[in-house]
Amino acid sequence: MKIKRIIEDLFYMPRSIISEPTRKTLGYIKKHIPKINIIKFKTGKKVFDWVVPEEWNIKDAYIKEPNGKKILDFKKNLLSVVYHSLPIKKWIKKKDLLKRIHFDEKLPNATPYVTSYYKKSWGFCLSKNKIRKLNKKKYYICIDSEFKKGFLEIGEFFKKGKKKEEVFFSTYICHPAMANDNLSSVAVQIFLINYLKRTYPKSNFSYRFVFLPETIGSISYLSKKISLLKRNMMMGFALSCLGDNNQYSIINSRNGNKLSDIALNSALIGKKNLMKFDYLDRGSDERQYCYPGVDLPVTGFCRSRFHTFKEYHTDQDNLNYISEQGLINSLNILKNIIDALESKKFYPKNKFLCEPNLGKRGLMSTLGKKFKGKNKVTKNFLAYSDGKRNLFEISNKININLEEAIVIAKRLAKSKLI
Amino acid sequence: MKIKRIIEDLFYMPRSIISEPTRKTLGYIKKHIPKINIIKFKTGKKVFDWVVPEEWNIKDAYIKEPNGKKILDFKKNLLSVVYHSLPIKKWIKKKDLLKRIHFDEKLPNATPYVTSYYKKSWGFCLSKNKIRKLNKKKYYICIDSEFKKGFLEIGEFFKKGKKKEEVFFSTYICHPAMANDNLSSVAVQIFLINYLKRTYPKSNFSYRFVFLPETIGSISYLSKKISLLKRNMMMGFALSCLGDNNQYSIINSRNGNKLSDIALNSALIGKKNLMKFDYLDRGSDERQYCYPGVDLPVTGFCRSRFHTFKEYHTDQDNLNYISEQGLINSLNILKNIIDALESKKFYPKNKFLCEPNLGKRGLMSTLGKKFKGKNKVTKNFLAYSDGKRNLFEISNKININLEEAIVIAKRLAKSKLI
Amino acid sequence: MKIKRIIEDLFYMPRSIISEPTRKTLGYIKKHIPKINIIKFKTGKKVFDWVVPEEWNIKDAYIKEPNGKKILDFKKNLLSVVYHSLPIKKWIKKKDLLKRIHFDEKLPNATPYVTSYYKKSWGFCLSKNKIRKLNKKKYYICIDSEFKKGFLEIGEFFKKGKKKEEVFFSTYICHPAMANDNLSSVAVQIFLINYLKRTYPKSNFSYRFVFLPETIGSISYLSKKISLLKRNMMMGFALSCLGDNNQYSIINSRNGNKLSDIALNSALIGKKNLMKFDYLDRGSDERQYCYPGVDLPVTGFCRSRFHTFKEYHTDQDNLNYISEQGLINSLNILKNIIDALESKKFYPKNKFLCEPNLGKRGLMSTLGKKFKGKNKVTKNFLAYSDGKRNLFEISNKININLEEAIVIAKRLAKSKLI
Repeated sequence: MKIKRIIEDLFYMPRSIISEPTRKTLGYIKKHIPKINIIKFKTGKKVFDWVVPEEWNIKDAYIKEPNGKKILDFKKNLLSVVYHSLPIKKWIKKKDLLKRIHFDEKLPNATPYVTSYYKKSWGFCLSKNKIRKLNKKKYYICIDSEFKKGFLEIGEFFKKGKKKEEVFFSTYICHPAMANDNLSSVAVQIFLINYLKRTYPKSNFSYRFVFLPETIGSISYLSKKISLLKRNMMMGFALSCLGDNNQYSIINSRNGNKLSDIALNSALIGKKNLMKFDYLDRGSDERQYCYPGVDLPVTGFCRSRFHTFKEYHTDQDNLNYISEQGLINSLNILKNIIDALESKKFYPKNKFLCEPNLGKRGLMSTLGKKFKGKNKVTKNFLAYSDGKRNLFEISNKININLEEAIVIAKRLAKSKLI
Repeated sequence: MKIKRIIEDLFYMPRSIISEPTRKTLGYIKKHIPKINIIKFKTGKKVFDWVVPEEWNIKDAYIKEPNGKKILDFKKNLLSVVYHSLPIKKWIKKKDLLKRIHFDEKLPNATPYVTSYYKKSWGFCLSKNKIRKLNKKKYYICIDSEFKKGFLEIGEFFKKGKKKEEVFFSTYICHPAMANDNLSSVAVQIFLINYLKRTYPKSNFSYRFVFLPETIGSISYLSKKISLLKRNMMMGFALSCLGDNNQYSIINSRNGNKLSDIALNSALIGKKNLMKFDYLDRGSDERQYCYPGVDLPVTGFCRSRFHTFKEYHTDQDNLNYISEQGLINSLNILKNIIDALESKKFYPKNKFLCEPNLGKRGLMSTLGKKFKGKNKVTKNFLAYSDGKRNLFEISNKININLEEAIVIAKRLAKSKLI
Repeated sequence: MKIKRIIEDLFYMPRSIISEPTRKTLGYIKKHIPKINIIKFKTGKKVFDWVVPEEWNIKDAYIKEPNGKKILDFKKNLLSVVYHSLPIKKWIKKKDLLKRIHFDEKLPNATPYVTSYYKKSWGFCLSKNKIRKLNKKKYYICIDSEFKKGFLEIGEFFKKGKKKEEVFFSTYICHPAMANDNLSSVAVQIFLINYLKRTYPKSNFSYRFVFLPETIGSISYLSKKISLLKRNMMMGFALSCLGDNNQYSIINSRNGNKLSDIALNSALIGKKNLMKFDYLDRGSDERQYCYPGVDLPVTGFCRSRFHTFKEYHTDQDNLNYISEQGLINSLNILKNIIDALESKKFYPKNKFLCEPNLGKRGLMSTLGKKFKGKNKVTKNFLAYSDGKRNLFEISNKININLEEAIVIAKRLAKSKLI
């Protein structure tokens, strides 16, 4: 099955923090990962400085000219309404309507994605070019939405390993019809879970994955699980926008020296268009996981980072924007991190003092010859296999991609050198 | 009152290490800061490797042509004699006189400032262009100076705070008629003391300010107070040349990682023409305060640094060289440091785990919208308000000027977020 | 005596790991350093992952055309056979012979140096241009070599000092007729030992020097002495290729922050064409000394580093490639390191708090004058003479060459300032 298939299946749904389509999305995920556990937080529940909002659903929304012609139709573009808009139905003067319509200054044909989650309000989103063509004095507007009490829902999958130490992955499920932000990461995380279950049924480390609404979801989750996470998490990753194939982005943890930072960096060594961001450029749930007092070792991972690609938060972040190859490449980075962790030689250590004789093991030419390929990478790997550095750290030290380090570790283990 | 007024009042006086004009200068300072305490060191007293010199006063000095025409007149230019010159009166051949006249190679119209504090000698200072015009065979010279036993005097102002930990400021009062070096710093320090007294009558930290002759003054002072200073000083600043408006200079402490270094740097973030110097480029009393074994956390602060502006140590460092705006800007930097220290939130700490809801407090837009101003600086400030970093450190970390950090801290304290 | 004389004396000998010429080379060294101690390891002895090989000697080798004309003659070029070749005598077809001849792709007139120490094999080395001229169908080949049990031999010179802490120098003696690699280092090390004995007969630190075959020699040596070395070595240097005068190269220890790294760096401050390499660019016996678990503080020192000059491992690394001046300069660097260690002020410490009065001691002008030479270097030296930094560290901190630091330390000690 293609990874993109999941994105296609989930694409055309008006998800928000709490909504029917969000619940359906979690239901879809559960079909792929049956053992997922759903954690619920009731509307009105206080979580740290926040309050869980009401469920919001929308059936329809439009703007009609006096002649009945719809010039905005929610059913044709799920981003054309401000999310969490109050219901409204009325005639409105053009000049008053214009104050309620959002557009994207830089992409004149794009409809932007706008929310008003924590203040009751209403509004529409339209492309700049379409706004220009509004030429009636008044319009009939309708937002057929509904607020009600409900439950914020989080999907959590936990895989117990031999060790209590756990690796954490988090992504968000609250965005409506956009592909890169963030169905791409939802799909990659589903595939990653299934890879883990299939490849390491008896894993060494424990693993925890969550699918949650951004911000309020991670805050709610932390309000419940922070002690457990602080006790057991060895590293974690906040996944966002993993579907294009244009670049790789690291958003370092708050202090920038956590194992998660080192691990993700090692898995990206040698990649073209690698961008490294400081925590000052954070933007997704790493904001919460690394917050003072929370201080979990979580690193953000994106391809083109949120806020940096022009299609971001518009209807141009669609199924054409992403690619299967981009998704596969993103998935492979995360697989490599799991492979390293589950390697029997996660902390490789030389079995001999001094260099071993690689020639007699067929790991190097037996001829001492000028400029001859001397398997320098393998030698460098051994030179830092001191039992104190793990595969992530060795990769960084000798500047080879984590994937290569895993292969070398296997070969050396087979030769009984580590 | 203008800061420059102090400099004008004190300008035309032939100060040296110990002299009548230096005593008068201290008297003038005492008028502005009545509670100043005068500490005295007798001529001949041994202070570490040094001996307190004699008092030196000068009434007159000149060079006359045989026809009686004065071609050098101390009364018209206070720098025209080597400071601490022996008295002398005699006819001298031109070629012998030339050996005793100092000039500035690079500024042909300037008279340089030259001293011979620790070796009995004599000499004159003249501009290169005037020396060129000397065309007589012999000249009559006179230096009407006098040495006698006296007291090296230091003005010290101490403001006790709630805490024993103290902040230290030092500047020097021994230079004759030059404006930037160093009456500028004397004036700024007077204004700073009065700002502190007026603004923080019940300050949290203690503060200590000294006005002393350079080098021998700080050495004498340390010989008396080193234990006290080592016990209580949390940070200090050696002030020098604060009157022009051309650049800002930091001379880092000997190890370059003291709180004073961090504080001054934070107060200068974003300033144009900021120059950061290593301790290897030291030059004023930070030489003594940071000396091995003394090791106080003292950073040097200048505008254009000593030795780096061409007017330095000449009569062109005059009242025109400095500006009121330059003095005000220098003062503000030091005020900001005190304001940060006295802030109730010197070590800001989030009251909530996870990000607070800024929107509901009017600290951020409630609309989630692409590229919208999102008050990133406030968020960054909170993201590093972990109770372990003080305002100086947070400013440096998130790269905002200390002044802005203080404003944000106030606003967040008001909203009960820190 | 010229240093180069030693290289000339030892040049034309077909040394290998264990061989008659290698034994003669050690005998020659013993003439210069009578107290050298010979340590022996028997053929077949297991040393960590390795086995000490057999002794190998060669009397002759050639390739003849059917008409009897020698087109390769070992007696005329000692590199023209693969070292440790099996004996062979036979007619061979040209195409089979070609598979057995090595050449240097980049230097068409050079004969390369090739070894097969750990796999029984045979082969010849010839220049690319000569190979091109081979035009017979078959050739008669002869390698008159012999393997037999023997002893790997290491020359060790130990100079006991007042302290147990020792400084270690290692170089290798197994290479045949090449000048820079590595007779240059053998000669420099002989001169260094004699300098030490002559200059510091009662040295403060202890010193240990070894002359051994590369790789298997240092591994054998470590197998016997590792505990002693780990207990006492304060720093060490692996010397290689010290004969040209083109550049200076540091190969940092595995962690790159050892005293040996700091010391060698300080001795090379200000040198033109200084190249600093990471341990990833290691290549000689520092590979063993720094290996995980061995972890001795050893830094590699070369002029043009192995693998970086085109003549490396060919017959063009001959007596013309090196120069007496290059050897002297290399020797001086190492002398400076010993001089610093043996200085009475290895850890200089100010005798006074605050700056001393340099003027009264004639160490600085007594005139305070703008831009006048102020002996800044001496002042900087004092400013970091805190008793915690040694001469190597002070040199690095104030950026002066170690040699200058030693001179300043002497002058200041004489003035009783440190």
